Amino acid sequence: MAAARAGVPERGELPKYFQVKQKIDAVLDELGQGTPLPTEREFAERFGVSRMTVRQAIRELRLEGRVQRSGRSTVAAGPKLVQPLILASYTEGLRRQGRRPGRELVVFEQLAADEALAAGLRVEPGAPVFHLERLLFADDERVGLESTYLSAARFPALATDFDPRTSLYAYLRGLGVVLADADERIETVLASPREVQLVGTSPALPMLLLNRVTRDRDGLPVEHVRSLYRGDRFSFTAHLTAEES
Amino acid sequence: MAAARAGVPERGELPKYFQVKQKIDAVLDELGQGTPLPTEREFAERFGVSRMTVRQAIRELRLEGRVQRSGRSTVAAGPKLVQPLILASYTEGLRRQGRRPGRELVVFEQLAADEALAAGLRVEPGAPVFHLERLLFADDERVGLESTYLSAARFPALATDFDPRTSLYAYLRGLGVVLADADERIETVLASPREVQLVGTSPALPMLLLNRVTRDRDGLPVEHVRSLYRGDRFSFTAHLTAEES
Repeated sequence: MAAARAGVPERGELPKYFQVKQKIDAVLDELGQGTPLPTEREFAERFGVSRMTVRQAIRELRLEGRVQRSGRSTVAAGPKLVQPLILASYTEGLRRQGRRPGRELVVFEQLAADEALAAGLRVEPGAPVFHLERLLFADDERVGLESTYLSAARFPALATDFDPRTSLYAYLRGLGVVLADADERIETVLASPREVQLVGTSPALPMLLLNRVTRDRDGLPVEHVRSLYRGDRFSFTAHLTAEES
Repeated sequence: MAAARAGVPERGELPKYFQVKQKIDAVLDELGQGTPLPTEREFAERFGVSRMTVRQAIRELRLEGRVQRSGRSTVAAGPKLVQPLILASYTEGLRRQGRRPGRELVVFEQLAADEALAAGLRVEPGAPVFHLERLLFADDERVGLESTYLSAARFPALATDFDPRTSLYAYLRGLGVVLADADERIETVLASPREVQLVGTSPALPMLLLNRVTRDRDGLPVEHVRSLYRGDRFSFTAHLTAEES
């Protein structure tokens, strides 16, 4: 069978920066992870384009995680981390990949639940809620930012007993809480200036935002989590099985 | 308990465009879906900033799907579509949300499997593979682009018997194929110029890329699918349950 084409044709030429991006992408396949790229000037001469064009191409490659900054130079990046969408904490998920997870406390505070949070956690509006915001690390690299909300009435000792550098799920298990299921929503958003500053990423870098509500065996919500991962460093996997019919 | 803060402080002021973005975001909460926004000039006067600043704010709101173009004006966008990560086709997933799915053929061709595709589909390198590329619609809006690869030896009648405007999974079921499980990977990428043209989106809009390998009951791969969804129009949900331990 000959190739048959229908619908929208492939019109016109590719923009120059995109052609350069494809060429640099091919160069990256040859370079090992962490190897510095040739300079903008060298690429510009090699491909016969302006340095501005090279810069735009490299900017997109950086937003997509093909290259990254290392000090003052731009180097070939390693593959994205692959985090399974499972009922495990960040700490546990990363260990399964053989990576070293790290967490650093940014904010620990007590809030009064607004209506949305109260509905999510099934507490009264205005009820006390702990908010735990932590930076996420993979092998010492900052990769994300996670906000967890829990009922302060249900977990009153959290402020004193829990070490925020460790796994919250391990702490909850120690209290006898059995996490049974969760609903998770995943989408892409742009990093805000505060997130840029905390995660150390580029402004307007596409991030992967995960919202999770986790319930115990009685169906009672235990936590609401908002996790933000660098889109250039993370991907997620799911194993899907046929539903009973 | 008073709010305790550690780690990275919140330094300095927010960039002006981001303050404007937050203000316009609040305006959007009041506007109904499809309502035109005030003009750049009006926003610039109201917030005492330049039109360039307003433009940058609105650009980010557009990339995030809070506003969208409608003819010559910019209007408040509806909420993102919520597609469950389940072993169902695009057609079936969208119907569950009460939306009207549509598909339009872009490319139907026969290829020789390269090494990666051959490994994924468990055929010999060079074996004939059908490639079916379709534009995805939700209620007449272009929202994504999907490439499906299947063994031409296994499904020889696909080129003649299958109507590409319909559900591929329904066609496969008609052949007696029972889809049992799939591995899916989800990440964010930037739209390429060809994808921009086909999907009708902005250059460099963050897209959600899903790669899926679907297997039948014998564990044999049936299809490899690469689906690209507009990041400003789509989100995905997963239901997670505790693993047996």
